Amino acid sequence: MSQIEARIKETAERVNLALENLLPAEQGSEVRLIGAIRYAALGGGKRLRPFFTIEAGRIFDADEGSLLRAACAIECVHAYSLAHDDLPAMDDDDLRRGRPTLHRQYDEATAILAGDALLTFAFELMAEPATHSDPQMRCKLISGLAKASGAQGMVAGQAADMAGADIGSDLIAVTRMNRQKTGALINFAVDAGALIGGASEAEKTALSRYAHDVGLAFQMRDDLLDAEGVVRDTGKAVGKDKARGKVNFVTVLGADATRDRINMLANQAKAHLSVFGSRARILLDAVDFIVDRRY
Amino acid sequence: MSQIEARIKETAERVNLALENLLPAEQGSEVRLIGAIRYAALGGGKRLRPFFTIEAGRIFDADEGSLLRAACAIECVHAYSLAHDDLPAMDDDDLRRGRPTLHRQYDEATAILAGDALLTFAFELMAEPATHSDPQMRCKLISGLAKASGAQGMVAGQAADMAGADIGSDLIAVTRMNRQKTGALINFAVDAGALIGGASEAEKTALSRYAHDVGLAFQMRDDLLDAEGVVRDTGKAVGKDKARGKVNFVTVLGADATRDRINMLANQAKAHLSVFGSRARILLDAVDFIVDRRY
Repeated sequence: MSQIEARIKETAERVNLALENLLPAEQGSEVRLIGAIRYAALGGGKRLRPFFTIEAGRIFDADEGSLLRAACAIECVHAYSLAHDDLPAMDDDDLRRGRPTLHRQYDEATAILAGDALLTFAFELMAEPATHSDPQMRCKLISGLAKASGAQGMVAGQAADMAGADIGSDLIAVTRMNRQKTGALINFAVDAGALIGGASEAEKTALSRYAHDVGLAFQMRDDLLDAEGVVRDTGKAVGKDKARGKVNFVTVLGADATRDRINMLANQAKAHLSVFGSRARILLDAVDFIVDRRY
Repeated sequence: MSQIEARIKETAERVNLALENLLPAEQGSEVRLIGAIRYAALGGGKRLRPFFTIEAGRIFDADEGSLLRAACAIECVHAYSLAHDDLPAMDDDDLRRGRPTLHRQYDEATAILAGDALLTFAFELMAEPATHSDPQMRCKLISGLAKASGAQGMVAGQAADMAGADIGSDLIAVTRMNRQKTGALINFAVDAGALIGGASEAEKTALSRYAHDVGLAFQMRDDLLDAEGVVRDTGKAVGKDKARGKVNFVTVLGADATRDRINMLANQAKAHLSVFGSRARILLDAVDFIVDRRY
């Protein structure tokens, strides 16, 4: 395991432990609902969004407790989005992170409700003083999280993804869809770290550009894995997009041109970090991990 | 139309107008999603939760702009919950407020996503300075809204409602389910007005007790309407609970005992308002409206 992979894994374990403690305990009359919530939020995953929040914040020596809590809130939003995206009425997926999807493990109603609860819980977490002592900062984080997740962000991206080729099958349409569906929350994850760390406007802009490029490269790599990957590695069904007539970077550009673009974006992302010098080493190494990953 | 009915209608019109302006406009590439969001949020309804927030706040001469915005956020949460509760995997309803339910008018995926977006938007609204100048207050409102809506509140209530007789068919189980499913958000609606108005602890407690009793009476009246109502009046299918083997106050207590309890709760709710004297006249009259309503 490379150094950066070990670091990502270490952060994932810290996030898992924090979520274990923050999420409601599986007891009482809501035991089934809470079981589903915990199944959705604690089922593994790379925890890349929390990683971005924490590592972006560390550039500025931000408070570790604040970063971890904000990271958990962001991961709850990510977990909710996966639960709802997998539903029969949406992508109808049976496999996620090597396990049955939430509605396959429980049932459809419970999966909808557990997703709703995770989304709600993310805002509850962000609003509490333990996330940040300054309520003004908490409001900023809540506002940013809502904008990244809502009808102008992630939800819009999923709606466009569902519409498939109807949104257009050119690079502009696919880029726009992915910016909303996955880019917006990755961007906010990095922004949240910068915000909590008290970054200057110039520093925020540099990190935001980094997040933009990394987010696109991440999604392109995902599309390559979907086209070429094996279930064993990814823990989810592969070859789905083509089979469903969905448009993605590989269907639009082809695999070779997608690979070229990933490399271009990776170099660009790294260049945005130059202002931070060695303080951004981890975010720099993360680029290589993201573009080379097999899962 | 009685005076109180006119007042409720007037508030509903103010809330509708505010929501019309606050919700994203139906344009651009998200036109279908945004159309669904607006359909779900602007389709009529009594707007009782906003009414409670606004009238509770008026007891303390609270800022009207703050009250209206918080009221809109709460109504967005209510609208989302109806959209998700009506889904085929949940209550599978075709009719709501005299129109096709959201997933019948659009499709299931769009209904899930529009609900998600409305829930998210509620927190975005609450977090913005226009809701209240004090960020500490906005965080309190967000935290309260999340608690009332999430896995310990509304979502838990819907999960229990879905479980039907499995939760038990005694008065305690039914009361608990309704406290979560509808009571928690009605309570928060009143609490939000008191919070924004700067009520004292004693005043908050009095209003909270009022909300508790009114919330239960409201739900009991709903169950009576479901058992005896006509589609023309209620704008939704009636006789549903019995047909689905669901438990509610009428299936547990019978219609007569339910009516007795409504009257008892109504008197109790009014008694809690005595500390406010004539300042609470509107909330007092609202009790009669709620227990006598035909829709």
